[in-house]
This record gives sequence, C-alpha cells and structure tokens, in this order.
Amino acid sequence: MTEIVELNVGGVHYTTTLNSLLHEKDSLLCEMFSEGRENLLKDSKGRYFLDRDGVLFRYILDYLRDKTLNLPEGFREKQRLQKEAEYYKLEGMLACMRKERETRSPGSITLGYRGSFQFGKDGLADVKFRKLSRILVCGRVALCREVFGDTLNESRDPDHGGPDRYTSRFFLKHCFIEQGFDMLHEQGFRLAGSCGSGTAGSAAEPKPGVDAEENRWNHYNEFVFVRD
Amino acid sequence: MTEIVELNVGGVHYTTTLNSLLHEKDSLLCEMFSEGRENLLKDSKGRYFLDRDGVLFRYILDYLRDKTLNLPEGFREKQRLQKEAEYYKLEGMLACMRKERETRSPGSITLGYRGSFQFGKDGLADVKFRKLSRILVCGRVALCREVFGDTLNESRDPDHGGPDRYTSRFFLKHCFIEQGFDMLHEQGFRLAGSCGSGTAGSAAEPKPGVDAEENRWNHYNEFVFVRD
Amino acid sequence: MTEIVELNVGGVHYTTTLNSLLHEKDSLLCEMFSEGRENLLKDSKGRYFLDRDGVLFRYILDYLRDKTLNLPEGFREKQRLQKEAEYYKLEGMLACMRKERETRSPGSITLGYRGSFQFGKDGLADVKFRKLSRILVCGRVALCREVFGDTLNESRDPDHGGPDRYTSRFFLKHCFIEQGFDMLHEQGFRLAGSCGSGTAGSAAEPKPGVDAEENRWNHYNEFVFVRD
Amino acid sequence: MTEIVELNVGGVHYTTTLNSLLHEKDSLLCEMFSEGRENLLKDSKGRYFLDRDGVLFRYILDYLRDKTLNLPEGFREKQRLQKEAEYYKLEGMLACMRKERETRSPGSITLGYRGSFQFGKDGLADVKFRKLSRILVCGRVALCREVFGDTLNESRDPDHGGPDRYTSRFFLKHCFIEQGFDMLHEQGFRLAGSCGSGTAGSAAEPKPGVDAEENRWNHYNEFVFVRD
Amino acid sequence: MTEIVELNVGGVHYTTTLNSLLHEKDSLLCEMFSEGRENLLKDSKGRYFLDRDGVLFRYILDYLRDKTLNLPEGFREKQRLQKEAEYYKLEGMLACMRKERETRSPGSITLGYRGSFQFGKDGLADVKFRKLSRILVCGRVALCREVFGDTLNESRDPDHGGPDRYTSRFFLKHCFIEQGFDMLHEQGFRLAGSCGSGTAGSAAEPKPGVDAEENRWNHYNEFVFVRD
Repeated sequence: MTEIVELNVGGVHYTTTLNSLLHEKDSLLCEMFSEGRENLLKDSKGRYFLDRDGVLFRYILDYLRDKTLNLPEGFREKQRLQKEAEYYKLEGMLACMRKERETRSPGSITLGYRGSFQFGKDGLADVKFRKLSRILVCGRVALCREVFGDTLNESRDPDHGGPDRYTSRFFLKHCFIEQGFDMLHEQGFRLAGSCGSGTAGSAAEPKPGVDAEENRWNHYNEFVFVRD
Repeated sequence: MTEIVELNVGGVHYTTTLNSLLHEKDSLLCEMFSEGRENLLKDSKGRYFLDRDGVLFRYILDYLRDKTLNLPEGFREKQRLQKEAEYYKLEGMLACMRKERETRSPGSITLGYRGSFQFGKDGLADVKFRKLSRILVCGRVALCREVFGDTLNESRDPDHGGPDRYTSRFFLKHCFIEQGFDMLHEQGFRLAGSCGSGTAGSAAEPKPGVDAEENRWNHYNEFVFVRD
Repeated sequence: MTEIVELNVGGVHYTTTLNSLLHEKDSLLCEMFSEGRENLLKDSKGRYFLDRDGVLFRYILDYLRDKTLNLPEGFREKQRLQKEAEYYKLEGMLACMRKERETRSPGSITLGYRGSFQFGKDGLADVKFRKLSRILVCGRVALCREVFGDTLNESRDPDHGGPDRYTSRFFLKHCFIEQGFDMLHEQGFRLAGSCGSGTAGSAAEPKPGVDAEENRWNHYNEFVFVRD
Repeated sequence: MTEIVELNVGGVHYTTTLNSLLHEKDSLLCEMFSEGRENLLKDSKGRYFLDRDGVLFRYILDYLRDKTLNLPEGFREKQRLQKEAEYYKLEGMLACMRKERETRSPGSITLGYRGSFQFGKDGLADVKFRKLSRILVCGRVALCREVFGDTLNESRDPDHGGPDRYTSRFFLKHCFIEQGFDMLHEQGFRLAGSCGSGTAGSAAEPKPGVDAEENRWNHYNEFVFVRD
Repeated sequence: MTEIVELNVGGVHYTTTLNSLLHEKDSLLCEMFSEGRENLLKDSKGRYFLDRDGVLFRYILDYLRDKTLNLPEGFREKQRLQKEAEYYKLEGMLACMRKERETRSPGSITLGYRGSFQFGKDGLADVKFRKLSRILVCGRVALCREVFGDTLNESRDPDHGGPDRYTSRFFLKHCFIEQGFDMLHEQGFRLAGSCGSGTAGSAAEPKPGVDAEENRWNHYNEFVFVRD
C-alpha cells in the first residue's frame, strides 16, 4: 500500500502513495485507483492524469494524508476548494468544510461601554483612570454565546427566543474591555470600526452624589468586530 | 474525446483533455483543436504552444472544465483575465464575468443610527442598554435593495425615480444594527470607516416626556460599508 | 515570424514567438533576436539565456504580446518592473508606465459634511433622516477635478492658481455623500480614516427659524480617501 | 556528511545535504536517513520520497540548515507548519514555535489620553499645542509589561494579583503618545481602531486656576492596538 | 566572464553568469566560484548546489546583477533575506539593507488640527468651508524632519535636544492638511487611525470678535500615521 503514485493534475505534478489515494471509500480517487488502474489516462511521462485544477489539489492531498482539514489562515479559495472536493466525491472533507462553516460562522458583534474617569478627592495633578460600569454586547445571540461563554450575562434579555435572533441586552460579567477584545480575537474576530461620542451639557445641577467633573467626561465608545 | 493534450502556454505547462478544449464552440481553442491540428505550433517537447500568459491560463482551463466561473476571493487579476478570455474568444466566460460585475457591482452604503441609553426608573448601578429608534440606510437605491431586500423600508422616499439615483431616506424595518452589518457582510461589503458624534447641550428644559439623562447621551453613529 | 523561441530568464523558462520578441524596435530584445542570434548565450538545454529576474519577465512578455500594459490590481513590484523595462530598453512600455503614474497619481482627498437630522413637525416616533447641506471637498486641485469632474463646484475658490495647489474651498453640486464615495472608489481611492464631532451647546436662544432639536444634533463628519 | 540528497516531498523537489537532514536527533528525518536508507521509497527519478506537503517543507529545511526558526512576516500557515513539524518529530523546531507563541502572544492593549490645548496668555493667532497629562494603559498585565518595560508606571494598581489579570490602572512615565505608539509597533502591535469624544459643557463657572478655553477643548482619545 | 552557470539552490534552479556571481569580492559566492570550482558540490544534473533557501535567492541574484537592492513593495521576508545575505557574506547588500532601515525607519507621526467653519456674514444657504489655523505635528523629531523638511515649523520647540526625542510642538508652515497627508504617503506612511471631538458649551458669552456659530463648531481631529 506504500506504492508510490505520480500524478499530473492539470499540469501540476504530485507524488503520493496509493495508501493516501485510497483513504476515503466511495470517493472518486478510491474508485479510480482501487481497481482497473490500467484504464486511467496517463500523460507522456507515465503519470496518472486528472483533468482538474493543479494548485488546489495540494489541499486535497493534505486531507487524504492527515484525515483532517487544515487550511492556511485567510485562505481565499474556499469556494473553489469546495468545488474540487465535490468533484472528487470526498464526503469526509466536505463534512469538515461544512463543520468549519458552522462553528466559525461569519458575523459581527458590537462591544460598547459608557465610561468616564475617576476624579473624587485627588489633586489636579493626579492620574484619573478610566472608569466604566458595564460592557454592552450586541449581536446574534448564538454568536455572542459562542464567543463569551461563561463571561456573558444574559439575565436582562427578557426575550427567550431562538439563538438566531439579535439582541442588544447582553453584557459582560467583568469590566475589562481588553479582555473582551482578546476573547473576540481568539475566536477569529477583528476590530473593523470604532466610534466615540461625548454627552451634552445640561443647565441643571448634577444629581446629588454625582461628581460634576466625572459627569462632564462621560462618553460612549462603540467597537464593531467582524469575523469573515 | 478524452485524448490527453499537453500545452505550453507561454512557458507554463498544462495537461488537459481534448474534450475540455473543445467545450465552447466559436472559441479560438475550439477552432484550433477541432481541425488541422497538424498546423499548430509545438515546442521542443511536442507540447502545443500558445503565446499567451501562462499563469492566467489556470482559470481559462477551470472554466472550460466546469463551465462555470469560480475565481479566488479577492482575485486581483480580473482585468488581465478578461483580456485573456477576449483573446481566446470565450463568449460564455465573458458573459459570466459581465454578469458577476453586474450582480456584485462595487459601491458604498452608509448605515447610521441616532441612539442613546435606556435610563427610566432603574437605580444608578443598573445596566443601561443601547436604545436606537431607526437604522438609516443611505446609498444607491438599487444597491440598498439588493442588500436589504424585504427588511428595507422605502415608504418615506417620495422620489420614485430610477434605481440608479441615490437616497438618504431609506431605513430598516428592524432595530438591530448588527443584523444590518451581517447582511452587508453576506453581500461582500466590508466596514471601511465609522464616526460618531454627541449632541449639544441646551439651556432650555427638556420637553415633557423626555428623560433628561437619556437626552444627554444622544449620539449619532455612522458606518460606511464598501464593496470593491 | 511565428518561429517558437524558448527562453531561460534567470532560471525561469518561457516560450514565445520570434514575432513577440521583435515587437518593439530599438529594444534590447529586438536587437538581440533580429540578427546574429548565433552569438547569444544558451543554457544546457539550448534555451536562449537572459541574466535577469525570471518572475518579472512574465509582464515584459505580456507587454510584447499585447502592446498594452495590464498589471494585476495592487501589483507590488512596479519599481522592480520599471528597472527591468529600462534594462530591456522598452521605450513603449516605459511610456505606458509613465502615463499610468501621471493619470493615476497617488494622493489624498477629504470629503466632509456638516449635517443634522430633519425634525420639523413630525411626531416623536417618526423617522428623522440625515440632512446635509454641502459636501466639502479638500485636496490637490488637479486630483479633485480628475475624480469629480462635472459634479465639482469650484465657484467659491477665488484663487485661480495652478492645478498643483491645494484647496479646501471646493464642494459637490449634489448632496449624496455615497455618490461621492462611489466616484472616489471608481477612481481607485479607498477610505483610509474618518472622524466625527458634535457641536457645543450655547446659552443663547437659537436664531429665529432654526429648529432647536436640529441644532443640537449638528455634527461634522470627515472622510479621508487615499489612492496609493 | 556533505553528500547531496535529492528529495521529492509530495511532488515538490528539494535538494539538500545529508548533514542538514541528520541535524536533529530523534527526529523522523534523522531516523530515516541515518540508517537503512535502502528501504526508503524513491520516485521514478531516484529522489527520496516523503508523502507530505511540498510547499511547507521549505521551512522545515530552513530550520534544519540554520537551527533557528525564521518565518516570513505575517506568515499565514503557522498551524499547518506546526502539524508538519509534529509529523517530522522535530522537537527543537516545535520548541521554537512554542517559545514564539509565548513571547509574542496575541492580545490587545489600549492607550488613552485626556487632552486639551495650551492657551494661556498667547494671542489668538498663536499656536496652541496639544497638552496631555497622562497616557493611560489598559490590558493584560503581562502584555503591558512586555511592551512598555521601564516606561510603565504601575504604582497606582493596588491589586498585586497574577500577570494574567487585566488592569486599567497603568500609565506611562512619559507624556509622548507617539513614543508609546512606536513601542507598540516595535513589539508587533498594530493600531486597530480609535475613537474620540469631547466633554459636556457646564452651567457652573470653571474652578479657579482652570483656563475656561482649555476646559472647553477637553477630549478623550482612545487607541486600540492588537497583536495577532 | 559571460560563462553561463546553472545553480540548484535548495531545489530551485537558477541560471546566471559567472560574472554576476563574482560581482562582490570577499563574498562567499566570489570565493566559491573564483577558484577551485571542481570541488563544489553538484546535483545529479550537473548544477552547482547551494544548501540554502531557493526562493530568497531570487533577490540575492537580483542584487548581484544590478548592484542595487530593489525589493517588492511590502516585502515580508526582510529578516529572512538578511540572514541569507549574511550567509553569503554580501557586505554590500547588507549595507544596502542597513541604509534602507535607517532612512526609512518605522515609526508613527500624528497630525492634528483644531478647526471650525467660516460663517461670517454669509446667508444661511451659503457654503461654510473648513477653517483651520495650524496643523500640529507630533512624533520623533528626526522622523518629522525627514517627512516634512522645509514645510516644518520648529520655532516653538524650546528643547534643542537630540533628534531621537519626541515632540508635540512642531507644526506645518501651511494650512492644507491634505498636503501633509500626501507628504506622509510619499514617505511610505499610511493612515492607521483617526479620531475627532467637539468642544464643550459654555454659559459665558463668547469673547468679543469670536463668532458664536463658528465657536460652536470647533473640533479637534487627530490622524495617526504609521510606517512599518
């Protein structure tokens, strides 16, 4: 089964073993190479010939060798590769691609926070740190859950509909927005846009217990994350 | 018809079948390979020679095999490929490229929303969620319709001109901006820029029924999406 | 003239016709291949040898075949290709590259608008659409004219200096900023950054005829476009 | 040991020395080529055959030659390369990859500053420069330390927990935000998003010693940096 | 000296002349090919063999031919190429790379402006153009000088320290921010982020000579440019 097989796939040459080619039963390659090989087309150098794209066959062969799908990050020929997998009738590979699409589905999530700075009794020269109360999470329910898991607080979303609905009533259990950013990055999201705005002044006196200076620095910053 | 044909396209070697080469009637390749093949030029190894770009021929051959056009995402040689298809007189392929340009035409759409936060009677420590009334949609009418379909509310655009005019009077039927983002991404748009602004304070008292705190947090966020 | 010529350009093999190589008079290739070919260097397989970069020769050959220059979008070896064209003394190709640099020169254009929302007599629940008076255009005069053509209003720029000066007194004849975005994209610009700001409140009463609410929502959004 | 070895790795041909292949003891390649080479598979041209991805072997060979790992910037096949290193049992290479992941771990850091402009006694026509008091640093403690080292002021973070917690109470010892930007870039971070906001006006008089104009221009700008 | 030399560099084949290989004295290639060539390793086809990365040798050969370094824009293997140049002991090439790093060092520059709009006596329907007083420049002194040269006003930076310090007290001699953008782009910078903010309202009357409307529209926009 470790017999070497030389292939000419649309003009690109690959070398592999019979073992790899027979890996997936019911596939076209298994059918072609398991019996009656003498009927297959050969090129002028005696390589078995496949009239398909030669470049994408690299990933077909990868799958056959390792039985897992492992594409380059940011791979830009997924649709084309899918077509090849369909041609070769590689059900296992198609299942891998389907699963990847489901578990890493594209979508957007917005993180937002209303923040200000800690003033209190400190002198003017002192450092005023960022102060934020809640990190709001907006997006499709299933996607938010997938990314934030246990750190997501869903207690204020009164609508217990399906996971495909959108919500703007989730928030994080912690107050570190960079931790939220990191969790989004780990799940393959990137920051696509951000915007900020301050608040309007008011002729009225601040409510009791509200620091006037802190009140003036109130702002809302919003960060849109996207997974392709 | 499954005769193997070896080609030298500008120095790059391809292997295919006669069947694939004859696929499109009236094309140059069909004309060349359907009769009088003995007059074609051959290189020193006996491969049929085409004095054209060798790299782009990969996609020409792809089209001939599958009868559909399926380019890599973000393909950067569309103009060059068009020139090759013209050279080979592949009317079917040119029609595919034309159709793709029409159905996925480049353009920009802006989503914007005037928002604030829900305050009401809750205690200070409570979560204030994002509150937005309408998601505004601006752009070329045909493009907005293509992206948002049934979720687009056109009732307030009094000008019933052609689909090529621009509008800033469309809005979405729902209030989930992330759903709008997702629909734009599904149609190949990306978020290219965003900006936010708050509102000015006023010496006047808020109108009756307007929450003063909600009023202060009013902001307008605008998101520009582009499809290349 | 359709004699096949096999070339070894720095180790990369190309196949073309004598016809293509002789295309441009006074070029090095024309000189080399029009007479005395027996003196040219050949590699061990009898291919004519050129001691130059093999990868970039793809575009040299492309030019010789089609007599036009058609590079991939976002091509990142323009300077290197220029050096090759100089080496091969391809005056026509160098002229193409020069022209492209001139007609699609790099630069930045800023679009900005002062906007608010239409309030008027509508009820609170109604949709308030974006309202903007003028779309301001800032940048180098020649570049602004190239992009916006007839849609550019130059009437308020009192300085009739040369096209290389910069202006911030142009504006568009229409009020659809997405149309401006689309024209910039068509000319190869991309949105590189954007920022927004609101206005300050005032203790004074709004001027007569000014809607107080509209006044509060005033903002200025600025979009910077760049062509590389 | 300088014997030349020709390899066929999944159809891509490499040439190297026996010396390089034996470089790492306990690796699969060392095992294969140190004894009993007559049992290895060979292709039709007599090259030793490996049934693995041919493209990624470039970096395997690189490592074997130089004993260090040096990947292209922005390399997008790290996971795939890891799988190859595991297949070849290259413990040293896997250790390099692990170390790189640890010392250049992905994550986000936010820089923010509260700033205004210097007004003072200058005439109206004078230049007012940016004035900022503290550059705030937010993110995972270990990551902030790695990037800013001695320039980081941790004196105000009362929680001396582990380096994996998040903080928003660090700041820089200097006041040049571009220096902070440069340190982040040197460590492989890029600016992923930014947002700004002004402050609300107040009916109250400014505190004594506060310049009214400087007060009006107060703003908070926030910059999110990400390392992939 | 125009003898053709065929090379096998780690499996990639190059063809060049002896002349090119001997170009740089004291280099490894000069040493190898100037004498005793019979001792060099050859592959099975008689090509001289180098046990190094085959892909990067393209640029080594480029340098040897042209005696200048000319890499693709956005080249992502600079560190790897440096290692190759060190291996081949190409002092001239290393000097080129060093010089490029020095003259095009990475870093960030911030442009900012305080702006508003020209109101004056014009009617409400009239165009109000952007009005900005000074374009502020912040960053490392040497970098700011390199980019802006004669258009940089340094008169207000009282600290005459070394060029490696950071400043936020430079400004441009002109008031066209797009011209500043263009100069930054010409020097290889790109716009990485931008943010804007308005000003706070004030209960006090505007100072004499200050237009109240212009005052309300005051904003500060900040643009961060980065060179990698």
